Amino acid sequence: GRPILHGYFRSSCSWRVRIAFALKGVEYDQLPVNLIKDGGQQLTEEYKALNPMQQVPAVEIDGTTLSQSLAVIQYIDETRPGPRLLPADPKARAQVRMISDLIASGIQPLQNLYVIQKIGAEKMQWSQHFIDRGFQALEPILKQTAGKYCVGDEISMADICLVPQVYNAERFKVDVGKYPTIKRLNEALLEIEAFQVSHPSRQPDTPDDLRA
Amino acid sequence: GRPILHGYFRSSCSWRVRIAFALKGVEYDQLPVNLIKDGGQQLTEEYKALNPMQQVPAVEIDGTTLSQSLAVIQYIDETRPGPRLLPADPKARAQVRMISDLIASGIQPLQNLYVIQKIGAEKMQWSQHFIDRGFQALEPILKQTAGKYCVGDEISMADICLVPQVYNAERFKVDVGKYPTIKRLNEALLEIEAFQVSHPSRQPDTPDDLRA
Repeated sequence: GRPILHGYFRSSCSWRVRIAFALKGVEYDQLPVNLIKDGGQQLTEEYKALNPMQQVPAVEIDGTTLSQSLAVIQYIDETRPGPRLLPADPKARAQVRMISDLIASGIQPLQNLYVIQKIGAEKMQWSQHFIDRGFQALEPILKQTAGKYCVGDEISMADICLVPQVYNAERFKVDVGKYPTIKRLNEALLEIEAFQVSHPSRQPDTPDDLRA
Repeated sequence: GRPILHGYFRSSCSWRVRIAFALKGVEYDQLPVNLIKDGGQQLTEEYKALNPMQQVPAVEIDGTTLSQSLAVIQYIDETRPGPRLLPADPKARAQVRMISDLIASGIQPLQNLYVIQKIGAEKMQWSQHFIDRGFQALEPILKQTAGKYCVGDEISMADICLVPQVYNAERFKVDVGKYPTIKRLNEALLEIEAFQVSHPSRQPDTPDDLRA
């Protein structure tokens, strides 16, 4: 059967997985999990069985259920044909993972819904602070590693992480213009079909007023 | 030359890398970065050039400098002989990465020094809350995946992440006894030499009063 993605249109981690499926040309079904409605559909016992962290995404694939977007992306890469999402060279692979983890461990977790709900009224400044802190580190790294894309001239998992993080940054009113390499890469990547079809503005659960 | 680990005895992410080196039997040098002294030695311009995130670890290896512990561990695994740190089977690899990322993205970042410094006086409750939240998810996952170790009977990157996270949990007074699988795995792993020689109580920069 086709893989099933349990995700949310605006979740950056769900978007990562959608990009990976699109780049690999894998057909999949989406079962939306509304993180806001009914107090959060990720909190139901039914969903908790799919992902005990009560976060999106969760992916049913090849008879198993996986969570954590980078684990899912690397599983897709290792089991599906199509363009590789990590380069063959070990040093370039390490750079791709370093950039991916800088975003996935160093920036995104601090804007996760269950974290900013705990922060409360100051969530906008909190999120801006940690995105800026992360982008200040990411910019000089990308200056060294980037060609056309984050690491050299091939699209990789690093790019898959970058674009949804820039989207988050814009939601939290971070001035991405301060980071010229990040801005350039994001613009180049948004020209690519896999990044467009997977965009939060074009998903089955995108509300009409946010639809492209 | 030998790899150089820039780390801190008590940093859980530095400990992860020390375990990986020990499991692989790789000799390396340590250059301690004291996260507390002088307002934090990770904040110097000199260190920032090694890791723009101004965190430990940073590793100089094979003529390049890497940060982000899971990227470093997978680089070591892919370039060094010795026992593999990720299993050969793609589904088991995905489980190892899922568990590793649950800890490295879902738990640890919320107790990072620069985060809890921003939280201030409530940092103990804050850290307990997010460690408990993570362990409540990790426990049922490990119940399904674990054999002798986190995924089956071979030591993997998931184990490398688990033990330092349990050490952190104990520092923040989390009752690990509530999580019997986590507790059992942690105890089994602490019997292994690679986890012992890399322990925070036995590093060059361990203060005398914390030395084993």
